[in-house]
Amino acid sequence: MILNDTVVALATAPGSGAIAIIRLSGPKAIAICNSLFVSVVPGKLIKDQATHSIHLGHIKDGDKTLDEVLVSVFKNPNSYTGEDVIEISCHGSPFIQQEIIQLMLRNGCRMATPGEFTLRAFLNGKLDLSQAEAVADLIASDNEASHKIAMQQMRGGFSSEIAKLREELLNFASLIELELDFAEEDVEFADRSQFKALVDRITEVLKRLIDSFAVGNVIKNGIPVAIVGEPNVGKSTLLNALLNEDRAIVSDIAGTTRDTIEDEIAIGGIGFRFIDTAGIRETKDLVESIGIQKTFEKIDQSQVVIYLFDTSSAVAELERIQIEIEKIKNKHPLKPLIVLANKVDKLSQEDKKLLENTLDNVLLLSAKSGQGVDELTAKLLDLINTGALRNDETIVTNTRHYDALLKAFEEIQKVKYGLESGLSGDLMAIDIRQALYHFGEITGEITNDDLLGNIFANFCIGK
Amino acid sequence: MILNDTVVALATAPGSGAIAIIRLSGPKAIAICNSLFVSVVPGKLIKDQATHSIHLGHIKDGDKTLDEVLVSVFKNPNSYTGEDVIEISCHGSPFIQQEIIQLMLRNGCRMATPGEFTLRAFLNGKLDLSQAEAVADLIASDNEASHKIAMQQMRGGFSSEIAKLREELLNFASLIELELDFAEEDVEFADRSQFKALVDRITEVLKRLIDSFAVGNVIKNGIPVAIVGEPNVGKSTLLNALLNEDRAIVSDIAGTTRDTIEDEIAIGGIGFRFIDTAGIRETKDLVESIGIQKTFEKIDQSQVVIYLFDTSSAVAELERIQIEIEKIKNKHPLKPLIVLANKVDKLSQEDKKLLENTLDNVLLLSAKSGQGVDELTAKLLDLINTGALRNDETIVTNTRHYDALLKAFEEIQKVKYGLESGLSGDLMAIDIRQALYHFGEITGEITNDDLLGNIFANFCIGK
Repeated sequence: MILNDTVVALATAPGSGAIAIIRLSGPKAIAICNSLFVSVVPGKLIKDQATHSIHLGHIKDGDKTLDEVLVSVFKNPNSYTGEDVIEISCHGSPFIQQEIIQLMLRNGCRMATPGEFTLRAFLNGKLDLSQAEAVADLIASDNEASHKIAMQQMRGGFSSEIAKLREELLNFASLIELELDFAEEDVEFADRSQFKALVDRITEVLKRLIDSFAVGNVIKNGIPVAIVGEPNVGKSTLLNALLNEDRAIVSDIAGTTRDTIEDEIAIGGIGFRFIDTAGIRETKDLVESIGIQKTFEKIDQSQVVIYLFDTSSAVAELERIQIEIEKIKNKHPLKPLIVLANKVDKLSQEDKKLLENTLDNVLLLSAKSGQGVDELTAKLLDLINTGALRNDETIVTNTRHYDALLKAFEEIQKVKYGLESGLSGDLMAIDIRQALYHFGEITGEITNDDLLGNIFANFCIGK
Repeated sequence: MILNDTVVALATAPGSGAIAIIRLSGPKAIAICNSLFVSVVPGKLIKDQATHSIHLGHIKDGDKTLDEVLVSVFKNPNSYTGEDVIEISCHGSPFIQQEIIQLMLRNGCRMATPGEFTLRAFLNGKLDLSQAEAVADLIASDNEASHKIAMQQMRGGFSSEIAKLREELLNFASLIELELDFAEEDVEFADRSQFKALVDRITEVLKRLIDSFAVGNVIKNGIPVAIVGEPNVGKSTLLNALLNEDRAIVSDIAGTTRDTIEDEIAIGGIGFRFIDTAGIRETKDLVESIGIQKTFEKIDQSQVVIYLFDTSSAVAELERIQIEIEKIKNKHPLKPLIVLANKVDKLSQEDKKLLENTLDNVLLLSAKSGQGVDELTAKLLDLINTGALRNDETIVTNTRHYDALLKAFEEIQKVKYGLESGLSGDLMAIDIRQALYHFGEITGEITNDDLLGNIFANFCIGK
């Protein structure tokens, strides 16, 4: 895949703003801009300007002045794409954006495809493939944790670790293949015990990265928390209380069913996706028992369960609540469960004590007054911080990487088995090549147009 | 009004894009950026860089890297605001935008108020007031005509004409006031016939500018076209046909009443606002007669009327249609009326001839097949091009300017009357000063904080 034409696209968010950036990249970017830009300094031409310089002037369509703009010049290879790049900073009206882009199209540019600027950066060796993918993740990141992972990946992250292991493995592969040339002499160029140590090291790294995917995926998409509770026990008040603690609303997602609302809230920089359920009160009503089934499905899909009940009515029903909590524990013995007794502001001291004595680990809450909310957020963050996030460990969030890592792991296991069972060099070499292939898929040393097409199709235009 | 702190805002459209620009302006802009930016070139500092230069590096919040960015440096007075300006080009995720802006706020910036960058540009003499107002118009412009007017105004437009007349008038005012100092000697420093010629010239210019407001206002807001027609005669098909001719949808405006839909369509670079009405069929039904009243109200508000009828049923009702057309003509004799006979694809040649012979200037249309649509758009553009738009005349679109021009005109008429009736110099000087005041209001030589507050409150943040 060689791209040698010049492309143009709006690089800033669509819509109206004070300014917008229109980006050109390719061998003719400077020449095209040069022919359409008139500097405020008489005689000053864009083609004569140094890289990383900015120039005030007008974009002209013949006699017609389209806009007063700032033009930034970036010269190959010192640009995002590694090609000549021009950024035109124009007034941010959609009309002007459109007019300027169309002028560029009429003057030899092609409209950039989604992610084409980053694809060009990859093809020109400015980024490896996993770094290029991190650019899209970075732009999509909406909380601190996913931002951190994307930044880490963009700056090298685990792909540099993989690249290093790949090189070592490549070395051994060469030595083993060299042995094959001398097969009749029965020599061993590749030290088998060193090789075994490397294979063990690779196995360990792959295991760690593969395991991190579960965490990574959850961070990328928000940690699902099921709130189990009857109507009117204060679920929405609780969500509001969590929001009001100066935390950002990430999004409101209309649920898939009429009675399920999902709310995404960032707490301590981590996205939590709260899933409202219908509760699990024992019933003979068919409709309600379908609701209970759905509640258990939601619990299945979540990583944390909050059981919320209303103390103003529930002290009398403490037994039912105990039974319901047991039911959840039995069905999901390993899933973290937080029991929240809401509306405790209306409760007597005696009743509070009764609650605390009867229910394990109950958290007394008044979603309305805010009492107990800080303890709840601390508890939620604790659950996460016991995971991989606390360390600066690299985390895999990309399904494509995960698949490649799994396949590499499989091949490395074959190599390991081959080593242990004294498999002949020629057969082992095949497995090693396969493992190398999957490593290369991650960093982009092994690639093809279809794969690139798939990856960059998920980018926005202009990136 | 002196602004000497440093402000920050997102300058590009809100939302997610490939990149976003965060802009700082003020005396500390460079120092603040310097302390938070780490160049990829070791030891390179933003504060040592030349104006109009661009630098790659990272924005750091302590040890945490927020993003890889490009920083553009603009040094006072060579910037949009005339102050030191820093533009940070970061990855376009709303999360990153927010993080960087908040970092700037924690480090000595204040959030910019709407239009504050342009206000600062005005206060620092980079733009006059009418040019500053044109910036907002330019960003809001959504068709070629309003874009052209805003560009014209931003590049000086009529405010330079006003400024020149103001200076001449100021000269005469000084001379007349000088006469007052020598009142007892009965001298005339100001040549009365020259002065009269100037006053006539000013009168003429003001008249022209005041008259242009009607056209300007229509261009800015789209030319209202009432489509009069019963339900199902093909109004929405007609609008679609106009749209399908490769013209841009400008907006869909939900009508004020249930049965009025407004559609804005740009044709030949001019915005037309189509107003759907309920028709004017004679009826005894109270509800329907209210509909007819509303139709006439819509016709009142529009600049052009399209009468649309369905020929497949209407050939038999030709008399009723003639009566309705006459009714519109009688009520609005001066308003351009286009009569459209729709669905002519189903019509025999004889019936077509009958229509053309019976109705003046009827345009045969098939909104469905597209027949006649080009003739219709040509007719609409013709109506406009007979107006002021065809010339390169300056056009007033701003209500504030219009008011100031009206008041200046009033005062100049007083001066003119004073000249003709031999009014004493001291009284005439008062009228001249009043006229000068209103001229100054347009260009911003005369201003106050309230006025500035009102003007810039209409800007978006970041401009």
